[in-house]
Formats: sequence, C-alpha cells, structure tokens
Amino acid sequence: MDKPYVIGIDVGGTNTVIGIVDKRGQILRSGSIKTAVHAEVNDYLDDLSKLINEIVAETTTKDQIKGIGVGAPNGNYFSGSIEFAPNLRWKGIIPFARLLEEKVGIPVALTNDANAAAIGEMTYGAARGMKDFIVITLGTGVGSGIVVNGQLVYGHDGFAGELGHVIMRRNNGRLCGCGRTGCLETYASATGVARTAREYLELRPDMPSQLRSIPAETITSKDVFDAAMTGDEMAKEIFRFTGKILGEAFADFVAFSSPEAIILFGGLAKAGDLIMKPVQETMESNLLAIFKNKVKLLFSELKESDAAVLGASALGWEVK
Amino acid sequence: MDKPYVIGIDVGGTNTVIGIVDKRGQILRSGSIKTAVHAEVNDYLDDLSKLINEIVAETTTKDQIKGIGVGAPNGNYFSGSIEFAPNLRWKGIIPFARLLEEKVGIPVALTNDANAAAIGEMTYGAARGMKDFIVITLGTGVGSGIVVNGQLVYGHDGFAGELGHVIMRRNNGRLCGCGRTGCLETYASATGVARTAREYLELRPDMPSQLRSIPAETITSKDVFDAAMTGDEMAKEIFRFTGKILGEAFADFVAFSSPEAIILFGGLAKAGDLIMKPVQETMESNLLAIFKNKVKLLFSELKESDAAVLGASALGWEVK
Repeated sequence: MDKPYVIGIDVGGTNTVIGIVDKRGQILRSGSIKTAVHAEVNDYLDDLSKLINEIVAETTTKDQIKGIGVGAPNGNYFSGSIEFAPNLRWKGIIPFARLLEEKVGIPVALTNDANAAAIGEMTYGAARGMKDFIVITLGTGVGSGIVVNGQLVYGHDGFAGELGHVIMRRNNGRLCGCGRTGCLETYASATGVARTAREYLELRPDMPSQLRSIPAETITSKDVFDAAMTGDEMAKEIFRFTGKILGEAFADFVAFSSPEAIILFGGLAKAGDLIMKPVQETMESNLLAIFKNKVKLLFSELKESDAAVLGASALGWEVK
Repeated sequence: MDKPYVIGIDVGGTNTVIGIVDKRGQILRSGSIKTAVHAEVNDYLDDLSKLINEIVAETTTKDQIKGIGVGAPNGNYFSGSIEFAPNLRWKGIIPFARLLEEKVGIPVALTNDANAAAIGEMTYGAARGMKDFIVITLGTGVGSGIVVNGQLVYGHDGFAGELGHVIMRRNNGRLCGCGRTGCLETYASATGVARTAREYLELRPDMPSQLRSIPAETITSKDVFDAAMTGDEMAKEIFRFTGKILGEAFADFVAFSSPEAIILFGGLAKAGDLIMKPVQETMESNLLAIFKNKVKLLFSELKESDAAVLGASALGWEVK
C-alpha cells in the first residue's frame, strides 16, 4: 500500500511544468502546458488535468500516486489557494488545490515556489538530513523557504518566509514592487543586479566597462555575469555589492533561526563564487560571535531544469 | 503517576530565585540565594540544592516533582550548559543542568531567560493557545523567544532567537556590547532609552525638559518614564523614537515567521502606551501588505515579580 510516486507541478506565469517523480527524486515523465493562454482558471485546470491523466496513463496508474504537490506564486499551504498573484491572469483568491483535486481525484497540496524549493532540498537535495536551514531563491525576485526543527515555517497564516522583503536600506532605499523601499529583493534579485549595473554606469562615468556597449535600459543580470566572467572590473564590483547586501541580510537571518545552512537557489546562484565569496565574507564579518564559522553556505543540489518540479513534488509525499 | 509540580529557577547575576509551581501556574512556595557571592559554581550548586530540598520538604515530596526548569543567561537548551555568560562569575562552559540533576536527583532542563519567558507565556500567559508568536524581552538588553508551530525555535546549535542583535542602523549605528554596531538592543533596551535621553539632551540644547535636572550620566529609563508620565515632551519623544525602531524591527520579524502575536515582556514594557503606540504605528506602516492588521501586539500576562520563575518552571513540564 506504500504508493511509489508523486506528481510535482510548477505553476509559472508563462508555463506550467509537471512531472511524475519516484522516491529517489527521479523524474519518470514530464510535460507542460502554457499558463498564460488561459484567461479562465477552469479552462486551465481542464487542460492541466488532461495532461496529468495522459502522463499517468503512460507511466503507471492513479492508485500508485501518493499525492500531487503544487508550487505556485503566492500559494498558501493552509488554504490551498493562490492568493492575489501579481504574475498570473486569475485575480483574487483561487482555491487551486481543491479545484484540481476535484478534477483528477488525487489529493493535492500547494505552497509557494520558495517553500517548494526548501522541501525539495530537504527531500532530494543539499539539505538532506538537516533540520534547520533556509533556502533563498534568487530569481526575478527574492524568495525564501525556512525550515525549523524539520518543519517548514508557515506562520499562523501560511505566509511566513518573505525574506525578500526585509528592509536592508532604511534611508534612500530602492523602490520595491511591494510599494515599500529598501527591500532585500530590490538589490539581490536578477532585476536588482541590473538596477545596480545602471546605477554604476551612471555614477561612475570614468570607470571603463564593456557594459557601456549595451543600452542601459536593456542590461540584464546575465549581461553583468558574462562581463564579470571576462574580467570586467565594474561587473565584478556589481556582484560584490550584491553579495555584500545579501551577506548582511544573512547575518540577521542567522540571529533569528540559527540554521545549519543557507542554500542559494535560482538564476543568480549560477554566478557561483562571484556572488558566494562576498556573501560569505560579509556574513561572517557581520555575525554575532556565537554564530561565527558555524553556518554553511551552499548551492542548491537540485538540477536546475528539474528543480521547480522536484521541489513541488516533494510536497506530494506529505499530503494526508 | 501524573506528577503535579515543577520547580522553576531563575538564575540572575545577583540573585537566584526558585519556586514550586503547580499546573495552573500558581507558585506554592519560593526562595532565593545570592548568585554572585559564590566564586565556585560547585559551592553555589550546593547552596541551591539545599534550598531546593528545603522548600520541597515544606510543600510535598520529591517524587511529586516532574522536573526542574532553569532560565539562565546564555543557557543552551541542547547542551544544558551555561556558555560564556558575561554577567556570571563562572567562566567558560558550565554543564549546569547535569551538575544540578546529579545533586538533587530530579531531571533538569535549561534554557536562556527569553526562551523561558516564551514558554511561560505559552503555558500560563498571553500566548496560551497560540502556535506562532514571538516574545521580546525589554530589559537591560533585548532578548527574544520565538515559537513556531507550537515549538520553541532553538536552531541547529541551541542559540536561535538573538533578535536583540539584528542590525537596525547600518551607518553610524550605536556601539553594542557584542562588539558590533547598530544592534536593536542599543536602542530598544532600558540602557538604550537612557542613551537616547543623553543624545537628545546634547543634540537639542534649546528643548526644555525636566531631564536636564538629572546629571546626564546617571539618567535611567525609569527617569525618562517618570518624566514622560508628567507630560515632559522630550521624554515622550524619546519613547516615540524607541518605539519607532522597535516597530521597524517587528515588521522584519513578521516577514520571517508571520507570528499571530508579538508579546512585550520585561522592564520597558511597563511604559505601556508610551512605547506600544509608536511600536504599533511603525510596525503597521512598515509591514508588507499581506501582513497588515493581522499581528497582535500584546503585553506579557505573567505577574512581573513571578515571571522569570514561572517561565523557567514551564520548561520543567517538558523534561524527559
């Protein structure tokens, strides 16, 4: 009666990717549909259930599936709803888990992308065997999944772990999409790196950089990474600045939950030592003495193309 | 076989207070010894065990005591040790729980003062029935006990919850006893309030205040409180400044663990609305939208003179 498979679903603004996953974290079969073409969530869920039924039929039978785990922007674990997600077309509160469960007849659990990443690292990745760690997702924004005593921290309302929105600069901080200023996300995300690049180009007119050959408004974090890899000093300085703010933030996070490790996940983590070295140096020099030289900084061990589906699938093992 | 009593021990730098407590949080009998007179921890523990034996004999028998809970500065729950406590005479790592348990023959659990306060609020006080909350202790320093999902957050090493040492001012921050600058504790503790008073007196020479009649170096937070209660504008402004920084910090704490409540405990909490109003206003205006109007700000419900012993005693119910 021990069901051997789960299904992971990563709901993105553009695409929705699904996969059938076994206990070792192998994706046996996967597929995807377009998210954004569906103006009505019901049409979307019809297409999604059809895809689920197809890939289940090609691999196994429904009674072998323990559960479906969904990672979605603004996903709330307690309610199973997607609530006011700015990057999705469906507005307001969508009872996603209940609607999908009704259509496919498999129990569904849902959480946000960063929490799914944390469960994924704990189940299949860099946090195996750990009971206290934090996953920081560095993508378009900055998200986080916090694990304390082996359990994900959801808080009393299911919305805990918004570490992209702690305030790192209380004066003259950058305007954030959340409406406030100085949030970590405005500095340490991919878009934050691009903003830093534009600031550097403007404020240091005498510093040479190959970034000057790119129209400022189109610069991406990838451009800065490519320049840094060829030795461009300004590009390297931009990563040092980014890593410094991230390291300052991490020192505060450690004072909160004293994790065994902080794990970097997502696009910017690909910058490797360019970002990790300044994060490590700044975190250590900012830590309270009792925490120094104790906290591991790690990169995600989930294969990037599979990470979102794997993370979501790990939640499938926890459905009741 | 359900043992009806626990013993709570509050180890302070000057005095150690103990009490026998029942399941409703009534202190049946209490006593105290001087902490600081004992240069050797073994002499201290001899005196402490003698006192324990006396008050147990006056009330009940040892087999009716479920456990002893100890709240001590720098107490580590995992190791049962007091580690490098700056305000105690015994240096290094003291295996306090094991030593005491050997002397009295009752199981002993130990944690730091702020964690003991959090367990006390959950067991007998303002957090009864809550699974996610934070206790902030506002005394000579600022401490914290964080509860997530009904469990105290100890972190991987037992030292989680050092929220007095998150950085609130990254430029020109006040020097902290921990060796760093800008820590919350340097602003929001009793000593922080006194520092703020000295700054105001110096930086606003034209502003009248009854605080000017006190020699600046001897001003305490109690002086500022007394002045504010008589309507002194500068004193009220000092509490607004203190509450504002505390409110900014709380908004970040909420982004971490999304607690149902934040509970103020300790000396400064006695300032009541003088501190709570600016905390509430600043926290709400700094919260991420999804957290607004959700987080309760409460005062401790433990009677002040008993709070430390009650908090420690609550840990006695948890011993194995």
